[in-house]
Amino acid sequence: IESRNDKALHLLLDDFHYADIAEILDELNLDKAVYIIKLLDSDTTSDILTELDEDIREKVLKRLSAKEIAEEIEELDTDDAADIIAELPESRQEEVISKIEDQDHKAEIKELLAYDEDTAGGLMAKELVKVYDTWTVAGCLRRIRGQAEEVTRVHSVYVVNKQDKLVGRLSLKDLIVAKNEQKIADIYISNVDSVNVNEDAEDVAKIMSKYDLEAIPVVDDNQTLLGRITIDDIVDVLKEEADKDYQLAAGITQDVDSDDSIIELTRARLPWLFLGLVGGIGAFLIMEGFHNVFEKYAVLFFFTPLIAAMAGNVGVQSSAIIVQGLANDDVKGSVNSRLIKEMLLAALNGFILALFLFFFVWITKGSPTTALAISASLVIVIIVAGLIGTFVPLFLNKQGIDPAIATGPFITTSNDIFGILIYFWIAKMILGI
Amino acid sequence: IESRNDKALHLLLDDFHYADIAEILDELNLDKAVYIIKLLDSDTTSDILTELDEDIREKVLKRLSAKEIAEEIEELDTDDAADIIAELPESRQEEVISKIEDQDHKAEIKELLAYDEDTAGGLMAKELVKVYDTWTVAGCLRRIRGQAEEVTRVHSVYVVNKQDKLVGRLSLKDLIVAKNEQKIADIYISNVDSVNVNEDAEDVAKIMSKYDLEAIPVVDDNQTLLGRITIDDIVDVLKEEADKDYQLAAGITQDVDSDDSIIELTRARLPWLFLGLVGGIGAFLIMEGFHNVFEKYAVLFFFTPLIAAMAGNVGVQSSAIIVQGLANDDVKGSVNSRLIKEMLLAALNGFILALFLFFFVWITKGSPTTALAISASLVIVIIVAGLIGTFVPLFLNKQGIDPAIATGPFITTSNDIFGILIYFWIAKMILGI
Repeated sequence: IESRNDKALHLLLDDFHYADIAEILDELNLDKAVYIIKLLDSDTTSDILTELDEDIREKVLKRLSAKEIAEEIEELDTDDAADIIAELPESRQEEVISKIEDQDHKAEIKELLAYDEDTAGGLMAKELVKVYDTWTVAGCLRRIRGQAEEVTRVHSVYVVNKQDKLVGRLSLKDLIVAKNEQKIADIYISNVDSVNVNEDAEDVAKIMSKYDLEAIPVVDDNQTLLGRITIDDIVDVLKEEADKDYQLAAGITQDVDSDDSIIELTRARLPWLFLGLVGGIGAFLIMEGFHNVFEKYAVLFFFTPLIAAMAGNVGVQSSAIIVQGLANDDVKGSVNSRLIKEMLLAALNGFILALFLFFFVWITKGSPTTALAISASLVIVIIVAGLIGTFVPLFLNKQGIDPAIATGPFITTSNDIFGILIYFWIAKMILGI
Repeated sequence: IESRNDKALHLLLDDFHYADIAEILDELNLDKAVYIIKLLDSDTTSDILTELDEDIREKVLKRLSAKEIAEEIEELDTDDAADIIAELPESRQEEVISKIEDQDHKAEIKELLAYDEDTAGGLMAKELVKVYDTWTVAGCLRRIRGQAEEVTRVHSVYVVNKQDKLVGRLSLKDLIVAKNEQKIADIYISNVDSVNVNEDAEDVAKIMSKYDLEAIPVVDDNQTLLGRITIDDIVDVLKEEADKDYQLAAGITQDVDSDDSIIELTRARLPWLFLGLVGGIGAFLIMEGFHNVFEKYAVLFFFTPLIAAMAGNVGVQSSAIIVQGLANDDVKGSVNSRLIKEMLLAALNGFILALFLFFFVWITKGSPTTALAISASLVIVIIVAGLIGTFVPLFLNKQGIDPAIATGPFITTSNDIFGILIYFWIAKMILGI
């Protein structure tokens, strides 16, 4: 394919969707990818750019001149345009913006760049269809024809008053169904959901998915209409959020994927492993402290991996349920009632598991006292692990810290240490050493 | 509020969005919830029903007569209606369907009930706006006015030929911009994405989010237009999928949330804990097998929790990255190259951690040989754990099994056992016992 046969390549790629071309380019080497991007029209390549893998996009953009980037940017909606410019190094941002010819587009992109990317302002696009409440349906349709050319997809028509304040919305359907001479003021729906420009992106996602909205207008503190957020951006926010929580639960800090370099993966994984190492050393110190139990009850030491594993598993289960509940906003009731419930649950699970372990140790070791000591401590260890797993994420959430960091290695490591300590302590008491 | 003051209650609730009322009802006791549902109009309550928590909806529906449920169902779009009926016990399904008065609606719901809920057919709604390619723009607008009354949100107008086969689409925007006398055949966009009715729901979600679609038409094997799927249903699919993977990674089998009963939570959690218990017993048996190492090198036993924790953490990290990569379709290249990469990564991480551990043991125990034995086995354990964590999900995925079950307790338990076995084995070799 790469014999520089431009025409054949053109014909071939014209049939592809830009998202598919982006996927192909992700696989090609950089030279070939840049070659293809320069070959195709900027209205296709601009869309391809938005779909490219972030790392590859960065490399491709480095190979394009500021002028070329500006041309791509001109084809994009303001939200995508601002996202791409925001990824460039500071020094190039200015240069690219200065090369954008369309003055309105330039001003809008500059405005969007000023918002934090994790807020409604960072998600919104300036492209929207807006009508004044004093217009008639016929006049409205005429103007919409003009505005709509710029807007890829019209979700809702937003109705504003003379001061550009959002007062309501209209669907295209309503407009089509209405009579030509009716006034907008008579037909618009005044009950319109909107979000403030400084609202957190995750909260916007929650609102839109709760109310099944496909687009939501963004306003400032004075209700002035600034832009709109569409559901496809929200799908991305939800996905990123879910991926982040999943990775945190697995002990992976940064947003990495399996194709990232070994160095990047190490940077994301090593800190959590190091935490595990420190925890393991803690467990070692505890066990050494109990080394005088050793001569008589060596069997206790053979069960430490079991105790540590159970403490870890229970902790991860209970923290995961809480973290997920917090993310879906369905953790209700007081912290105390949560802890009591988890305690009962852990006690029930612990009792069933301990019963099994009791008979196993009794039969294999022939000593009911040892069996009792080990299985009784297992119950307590499981209860404590469940309480820690429930309490820590609730506590972090109250402190305004993302509770997702409390899942995974963090909870398993701390539960390993607590579990082993409690285990030896209780076993020692029961065995009367 | 509950002094049966119907009018005041009506006034109060009329201002709320149905999703908010559903949230309030989730909190109330059953009597009060049923009372409010009977009080309000069925066009609000039907929407409330779709938003209620599944357990509560089941209870509320039990308290309504078949006739009352049928009235709610009449107000709903076909996809939501079919979902609610599917939740009823078999015997009641028939009864409720027979009470639906609108014959078209009834036939459509029956058709939807026939599809598997995890396919495109299970997600789609019958409500859509469809035009024939022979119509003119003016005639089309007239008919759309009729059809659109039934459809809550018009995303796209689908264009079919005389045999009802999907040939293209039109946006309302295109229609508004077009001239009245133009033929649909001249203005429609023939490049239309569609999915087969038997396509897997997750794949539909991938297609829609990849191409940023807000609705997609569903066709049968003959390209006949059957229905459409909208992005809000996809948001739900993506969320459920993410929740399921997250819970599996934490060792929670069924879809539970923190408000479920202790029995339900136990059923979801206990099997995984039991797996951990069996793994712990396995570790016990291995350690007992090495008990003759005990007298001389008791210190080895004190490090088993560390070894087990590291093996578990590394395994979870590498399996999580693979599972997430598989879910996002970006695991490329051969299994072998994946395994080599993971081996290098694990070797690098393992070496850094082992170096630290080596000096710790050397300094505290004064024996470089013991330190070497422990830290060298740590490197091997980490490499093996990484390979298992990478290989198992890839293998399961090849076998058509959901790789997400290979994360969490499954991988930690098996890595605990392998890790401890390898650890003692290598330490024994190095120490020459």
